[in-house]
Amino acid sequence: MERHFDEEIQELTRDMRTMGELAQEAIRKSIEALQNADLAKAQEVIEQDDRVDEQELLIDEKCIDLMARYQPMAGDLRFLATAMKINGELERIADLAVDIAQRVLELAGKSLVKPLEDIPRLSVIAQTMVSQSIESFINRDVELAKKVVLSDAEADRLRNKVQEDLVRDYMVKDARTVPSAVPLLLIARHLERMCDHTTNIAEEVIYIVDAKVVRHHRENLE
Amino acid sequence: MERHFDEEIQELTRDMRTMGELAQEAIRKSIEALQNADLAKAQEVIEQDDRVDEQELLIDEKCIDLMARYQPMAGDLRFLATAMKINGELERIADLAVDIAQRVLELAGKSLVKPLEDIPRLSVIAQTMVSQSIESFINRDVELAKKVVLSDAEADRLRNKVQEDLVRDYMVKDARTVPSAVPLLLIARHLERMCDHTTNIAEEVIYIVDAKVVRHHRENLE
Repeated sequence: MERHFDEEIQELTRDMRTMGELAQEAIRKSIEALQNADLAKAQEVIEQDDRVDEQELLIDEKCIDLMARYQPMAGDLRFLATAMKINGELERIADLAVDIAQRVLELAGKSLVKPLEDIPRLSVIAQTMVSQSIESFINRDVELAKKVVLSDAEADRLRNKVQEDLVRDYMVKDARTVPSAVPLLLIARHLERMCDHTTNIAEEVIYIVDAKVVRHHRENLE
Repeated sequence: MERHFDEEIQELTRDMRTMGELAQEAIRKSIEALQNADLAKAQEVIEQDDRVDEQELLIDEKCIDLMARYQPMAGDLRFLATAMKINGELERIADLAVDIAQRVLELAGKSLVKPLEDIPRLSVIAQTMVSQSIESFINRDVELAKKVVLSDAEADRLRNKVQEDLVRDYMVKDARTVPSAVPLLLIARHLERMCDHTTNIAEEVIYIVDAKVVRHHRENLE
């Protein structure tokens, strides 16, 4: 017995929520590993990326399978094509958590140049943006998607602040801080790039719901 | 009169080649801007990104339209879904050229800490990988796709070399070099990330041609 299309779409959205949860968990753990200089946890983030990759493939296969079996109309096709794009963004986000975990391993044995403040804050923003962007897709919630797009400015600001603080207050003043400051600078960039990926997701949502081309015209929202 | 599906696929591949050429041009110009401290050219890269974004949308729309009008079977559906994924990768590559152009603007008025050697080399590798990855898709050429995947190791090596040289020979030795070294370090990372995107494209090609799941199992190729 073939199941109904809507029922399969429900299952697909559950799979996407799981994908989002895996990405959020990877972000959270990678920053915990940084905060506690916990190399075992950093290694765990790297190893669990296989699980994320499997989930990405599963979702892609389901989308293609739904397209082939139901031959849906343009609106549903666009929804499935967007699900595949979002899926790719979530996989990139998890990859960036792996990048953070690798920076944590590079920092092994080095003490942190400064107490961590903005990086954990940026990590919370990234996790919230992941969750909100997926919910905006699942619920076709354009307002929530616009909120995600607007949050990106705060992520940019924090990333710039981390970089400027490290360069001005540490690296330029004391060159010995460079090897431990560079990984922090990169971690801030990895987190900000995650936020960019959630913004891509949110822009896709706005695009398919409003059928307006906003994803390359962020200024229209502001 | 409706055109034949194959004819429309031909047109789509031409559009994708154009997208690839736009991405390659953006990389080339951004590095020329760096080499010649040419701020006008950096600005040009930033402004021409709109053209890339338009091309991305055009290709996505064509793919959805072809899916909707021809209701193709699973193999062709997968080809079109892959075209959309590759399209997204090419747009990211052009975005990274914009990131490089922004680093060039940040460097305005600062002299380069060292002569550029590995960065231009990395840029040539990135441009070649863009071109080869698109051709591998258009011609379903698995051997060429595998070549792209294997080239990524050289890109990683050069990126690491640039970073290590800058940190060890300049930043740690003379803290005054930090503000002009950090943008170079980031440019090397932007270039290497472009190579990662071409590797994603090549892995998609291997996946659809061989119908083997290689994109998360690079070691199988080596």
